[in-house]
Amino acid sequence: MRNGITHLYIPGPTNIPEAVRQAMNVPMQDMRAADFGELTKPLFEGVRKVFKAEAGRVFLFPSSGSGAWEAAMTNTLSPGDRVLMASYGQFSQLWVQMAASLGLQVECLEVPWGEGVPLEAYEQRLKADRSHAIKAVFVTHNETATGVTSDVAGVRAALDAAGHPALLFVDGVSSIGSIDFRQDDWGVDLAVAGSQKGFMLPAGLSLIGVSDKALEASKGATLRRCYFDFADMAKMNAEGFFPYTPPTQLFHGLKASLALLFEEGLDQVFARHARLAEGVRRGVAAWGLELCAAHPRWYSDTVSAVRVPAGVDAREVIRLGYQRYRTSFGSGLGPLAGKVFRIGHLGDLNEVMCLAALASAEMALLDAGADLEAGSGVAAAQAWYREAAAQQVRLAAE
Amino acid sequence: MRNGITHLYIPGPTNIPEAVRQAMNVPMQDMRAADFGELTKPLFEGVRKVFKAEAGRVFLFPSSGSGAWEAAMTNTLSPGDRVLMASYGQFSQLWVQMAASLGLQVECLEVPWGEGVPLEAYEQRLKADRSHAIKAVFVTHNETATGVTSDVAGVRAALDAAGHPALLFVDGVSSIGSIDFRQDDWGVDLAVAGSQKGFMLPAGLSLIGVSDKALEASKGATLRRCYFDFADMAKMNAEGFFPYTPPTQLFHGLKASLALLFEEGLDQVFARHARLAEGVRRGVAAWGLELCAAHPRWYSDTVSAVRVPAGVDAREVIRLGYQRYRTSFGSGLGPLAGKVFRIGHLGDLNEVMCLAALASAEMALLDAGADLEAGSGVAAAQAWYREAAAQQVRLAAE
Amino acid sequence: MRNGITHLYIPGPTNIPEAVRQAMNVPMQDMRAADFGELTKPLFEGVRKVFKAEAGRVFLFPSSGSGAWEAAMTNTLSPGDRVLMASYGQFSQLWVQMAASLGLQVECLEVPWGEGVPLEAYEQRLKADRSHAIKAVFVTHNETATGVTSDVAGVRAALDAAGHPALLFVDGVSSIGSIDFRQDDWGVDLAVAGSQKGFMLPAGLSLIGVSDKALEASKGATLRRCYFDFADMAKMNAEGFFPYTPPTQLFHGLKASLALLFEEGLDQVFARHARLAEGVRRGVAAWGLELCAAHPRWYSDTVSAVRVPAGVDAREVIRLGYQRYRTSFGSGLGPLAGKVFRIGHLGDLNEVMCLAALASAEMALLDAGADLEAGSGVAAAQAWYREAAAQQVRLAAE
Amino acid sequence: MRNGITHLYIPGPTNIPEAVRQAMNVPMQDMRAADFGELTKPLFEGVRKVFKAEAGRVFLFPSSGSGAWEAAMTNTLSPGDRVLMASYGQFSQLWVQMAASLGLQVECLEVPWGEGVPLEAYEQRLKADRSHAIKAVFVTHNETATGVTSDVAGVRAALDAAGHPALLFVDGVSSIGSIDFRQDDWGVDLAVAGSQKGFMLPAGLSLIGVSDKALEASKGATLRRCYFDFADMAKMNAEGFFPYTPPTQLFHGLKASLALLFEEGLDQVFARHARLAEGVRRGVAAWGLELCAAHPRWYSDTVSAVRVPAGVDAREVIRLGYQRYRTSFGSGLGPLAGKVFRIGHLGDLNEVMCLAALASAEMALLDAGADLEAGSGVAAAQAWYREAAAQQVRLAAE
Repeated sequence: MRNGITHLYIPGPTNIPEAVRQAMNVPMQDMRAADFGELTKPLFEGVRKVFKAEAGRVFLFPSSGSGAWEAAMTNTLSPGDRVLMASYGQFSQLWVQMAASLGLQVECLEVPWGEGVPLEAYEQRLKADRSHAIKAVFVTHNETATGVTSDVAGVRAALDAAGHPALLFVDGVSSIGSIDFRQDDWGVDLAVAGSQKGFMLPAGLSLIGVSDKALEASKGATLRRCYFDFADMAKMNAEGFFPYTPPTQLFHGLKASLALLFEEGLDQVFARHARLAEGVRRGVAAWGLELCAAHPRWYSDTVSAVRVPAGVDAREVIRLGYQRYRTSFGSGLGPLAGKVFRIGHLGDLNEVMCLAALASAEMALLDAGADLEAGSGVAAAQAWYREAAAQQVRLAAE
Repeated sequence: MRNGITHLYIPGPTNIPEAVRQAMNVPMQDMRAADFGELTKPLFEGVRKVFKAEAGRVFLFPSSGSGAWEAAMTNTLSPGDRVLMASYGQFSQLWVQMAASLGLQVECLEVPWGEGVPLEAYEQRLKADRSHAIKAVFVTHNETATGVTSDVAGVRAALDAAGHPALLFVDGVSSIGSIDFRQDDWGVDLAVAGSQKGFMLPAGLSLIGVSDKALEASKGATLRRCYFDFADMAKMNAEGFFPYTPPTQLFHGLKASLALLFEEGLDQVFARHARLAEGVRRGVAAWGLELCAAHPRWYSDTVSAVRVPAGVDAREVIRLGYQRYRTSFGSGLGPLAGKVFRIGHLGDLNEVMCLAALASAEMALLDAGADLEAGSGVAAAQAWYREAAAQQVRLAAE
Repeated sequence: MRNGITHLYIPGPTNIPEAVRQAMNVPMQDMRAADFGELTKPLFEGVRKVFKAEAGRVFLFPSSGSGAWEAAMTNTLSPGDRVLMASYGQFSQLWVQMAASLGLQVECLEVPWGEGVPLEAYEQRLKADRSHAIKAVFVTHNETATGVTSDVAGVRAALDAAGHPALLFVDGVSSIGSIDFRQDDWGVDLAVAGSQKGFMLPAGLSLIGVSDKALEASKGATLRRCYFDFADMAKMNAEGFFPYTPPTQLFHGLKASLALLFEEGLDQVFARHARLAEGVRRGVAAWGLELCAAHPRWYSDTVSAVRVPAGVDAREVIRLGYQRYRTSFGSGLGPLAGKVFRIGHLGDLNEVMCLAALASAEMALLDAGADLEAGSGVAAAQAWYREAAAQQVRLAAE
Repeated sequence: MRNGITHLYIPGPTNIPEAVRQAMNVPMQDMRAADFGELTKPLFEGVRKVFKAEAGRVFLFPSSGSGAWEAAMTNTLSPGDRVLMASYGQFSQLWVQMAASLGLQVECLEVPWGEGVPLEAYEQRLKADRSHAIKAVFVTHNETATGVTSDVAGVRAALDAAGHPALLFVDGVSSIGSIDFRQDDWGVDLAVAGSQKGFMLPAGLSLIGVSDKALEASKGATLRRCYFDFADMAKMNAEGFFPYTPPTQLFHGLKASLALLFEEGLDQVFARHARLAEGVRRGVAAWGLELCAAHPRWYSDTVSAVRVPAGVDAREVIRLGYQRYRTSFGSGLGPLAGKVFRIGHLGDLNEVMCLAALASAEMALLDAGADLEAGSGVAAAQAWYREAAAQQVRLAAE
């Protein structure tokens, strides 16, 4: 028997806004009806705005984000293509594995977990690749496993500096919609997102922004794809349809979540994420603990991976938080298992929800044997949130 | 634009459990269908269990709790009947006003707000009433305005000590389903509850437990009643029907909430409320603030009315909590306006939700000018909740 | 085990539109929050538009429609007041009983069930009442039990012709929102509606339109009222609040249903009801059966009471429709039990839903022993609906 | 502005039962929580029961059914593998295309649309394949485009008669859960289903039953797969987890839909589909129209493809049904465009819903220029449904 809400602070699925939850409460409908496009076409336009992608196309696949990783690669690359990737966390590493498994020739730069994409090494490598053997360069914009946000614009700069024509792939699953992302400005060719993060929906829909250059590349790409084929999608999407039965329930939810994002304003959404994240970070600092992210320039505004003190098992923190305090934190993945627990602070969230996360984490940490002062993280975050709230009031009054 | 959940800590409506919310997501149905009783009859049985009322009847009226106050009086009393009441808060006072307005001759004992029903004065008065002119004695079990729980069994004892045959009326709106209540054991003749408190439903359904003695009294009672007539209800209820269209949506919700209460077990529900309330009280004490309830024996496990420090306006605390931190606290009512704010801690609630309430209240209090240490209330509650959680684990392991 | 939807063709509760159902899927909220009026105040304005009542006030009570009957009388009349009423069906009769039970001196004109309000008799009686002893005149606009719509404007004309100052009470429970109703134009002083009919909501909210004259009358009226007191409501409503916890879930639903009514346009709503009703009536005629309504001028566009053939028990038709074909029809009430079954055709309804009602009724009638041609009623209605649809297309094309 | 329900008679997505709709009304949750398996593990067991697959494994992929087609092939076959397929409708044809596109060597038997899998040709071909070059044989159990159900057991018999070891693939998307399917008994190696048909859920989840033989084959299969990899799934599923974020909302829905299927009983579910389908077919016959299915042995109990009369465009029927009568029928696909419209009669459906479909189709057909008697199809179906209902009553009474 469990009472009250489950406090959900994983980096996705995120908490669903009431308006989105209402919107998904629908009967089924005919996905071939003449007016189906009235529902779907504005979704493509809305997703474009979130990706800041006026050029190219966006695709919506009924799949989790991993499916979109696969779609991005299989539609634009060919067996044996050389790709430049970097591994600095569980998700960037899984993408590397997928690339290899699909038959790509992966050149992977190993980076310490806690750091971001290695800009200089990338630039160096690209400059060295005078024959342009490298067909694509990959960045995990926000490495969910370590709470590290990388500099996508920097990778674009590296490509430009090298005058290199490789496609730029970005995993924006835990960034797009929560952190500033600019597909067009940054020259991103394939940008991947999932419904269950900044889009504040259940899992089940992946979103891909595809540049014109990538669409062009897809014509000659020979990796096999069927379910995730861009061309089939594009043909049907033109009239608002899909090559197979799409998840209309999620479309109704997406319509509502896009409306919420635009009502708030993307800049305000990003500012809110930054503000909420900063409170969590101050709480962590007040505990005397460190983030996995090795430098403030990599701090993620969507997830903080907290290193537990020596002698404490982060898995215990998570277990105790869940069993005793009905709170879900993210676990340490791969080599970070037991060493970090993660606080997701993205999506439909506010200050008091973050304080609840900190309050709960404090109890779980203490129960797991950590030596910290109860209430200290909460107090540090409170100070920040109070200041921020007061400032918002001042700004609104001006 | 407001993000994340609204943190609801008013003493009703309370937070609705997901199972209840799901259950209310229904199409309409025929309230005269042959099988309608399959839905409704078990509700009466379930409500009986919560009231601990095997004898008599229970009624479900489509109204707020105030309607049930009126139903209780108009069905069992006659114009000019003398009734013994006590006023020790906004809601007991409103009941007094309603009684007078209905044409009863109210003998009202004024009690300082913060105290409970005056047992000795009641006993004295009842003993003095040798002619049994007093037809009914009233108790507000849990005075929601002050966070004071009164001793209903004590009133029964006073009646018995005086050998007095008056009917015993109890307002259990903010107690039944959250705090132990025993209609039969305590000889309560009319017990009133509302859907939006311990029953964890939206407002719109009032519940009344009526003893056999009260049913007998209703035959001769001449206060006028139509909508709230027991006899019409009883006749239709026998087959599971109602004299007018009932709120079937709430019936489905009630079915689910009763299932939750029984699954958890009433004793566990009460223990949980006591545990959660104690954490809140420790938090308040850590702030150096006092409750409106004047003595621990009156502490309510469903709502705490917190006295703000001199120089602070409780209305500001509430306003700031709502506007800046998306948190709803209860206001000070009547003479307590500006002097107290109330934290509702009843219904579908858990430890971290209470910590969130305290964390938010701390910010609002500080913003309103109170001098207290941020995080102090949270820390005090954390200590208590951690201890309680650890003890539960120990007990479960035995 | 029952599959598929239950086909609901009772005259309320009616089928709930998806948008309304979505809107009611809400967490609870503070009914004393500063911004609560942002939700509630537009509801009063919207309800006014539906009642076509610019003057006076509208009230929303947490109760079924019967509660509003009581509210209308207790707030504006005094014990012993003489009232002119007519009984021509179960609901008009129940209102008579309530009036008597509340202590009014009821002058009731008995009218054959199947006819409407007796305009001439009313006028005659009012003219004869030179002392203006009659304080109020009552009309059941749409008698739900017989499917008869009465001429409210005619009653106003009778009052005017007699120069009589009595208050005009109208039960519009099954008409307002579905059939044209004009509180101001018709000089209606107290108009009563319920949430579960034309407002397409669950039961639990009653709506009352009150003219300025009725508000003035309420100051001197001495029937007792507490829960249903206009003055308490008016005072709190001014700022969007309520004297007791209101059913916020239904408020959200009402917001959505008002939006739907205005989006469609009230005139279109009425036209749709007329169109759908006509199809049902043609179906009934094709069966060779008669309506309870004795003349076309009384035909109700919200409910048709169908007289079953001799030798057939209408209760069997209803039972078989429900048990075998999962369809809910309305039953014959009072003296009509066994003689009629009722098809509700109001609220969120379309042509094919009406055909389903007819198709199901045909099977139930046949199973109950009626002699009619299967499919005949459906065919008659189809012809009408096809014609109407074609005409709409022509009109839209012009 | 559109009123009332949309009448949905496409062969998927199907109408969602209320219990399933309620169950999907959930907040998000941690898909890595320790107790997540309590939700998911029983799903695998339930799906097994529906597939009648005690051996092997079942997989749940976040995708539409097309994804499962791909998963089935890529996990068990290798580039250049020869497969025996038959094309007798849009969906069997699409599967053929996918197979070719994935690099398989497809031997495709062309069968007239309206017929089922060619048992004799299959057996002949298999017997001729003495070297066992054919690695897999494919059957579309229910061809949704033509309303044809094929004999899967017959294909198994053909394989056995030939002593052929090829894997047996079955597309059961529009059959499993509605029509009898027996994975173990029929020796099916890969059975594919989708959530939006007999499982009465939104699209977004595909279900695959995999025999032990197919699991064994997957170890050596070299077609590339990542997202749809069985091995990754199997490893995580063992503890109830998934290799990427699964659609938990659909899991809750699946839990509810499985409960409904088992409560009704699979045999009763199949019988109901047969009964409802027969009524629709009698209605079509009464119109004087023919089904696409060329022989009763191929009649599908989940979808009927109705051939429109000469001179009538089936696209018009569908357009008019949708625009004028708010009814969704399935369209004619590929070469059947304009020649057939399809009535889906699967999932959560009852008799009166089927009559509504026929009544609406009659109007649309007439509006589109067909010459038929209004009400005739309804009447024919009514007769059948009445007889069936009466028989059920008799059986229940015995």
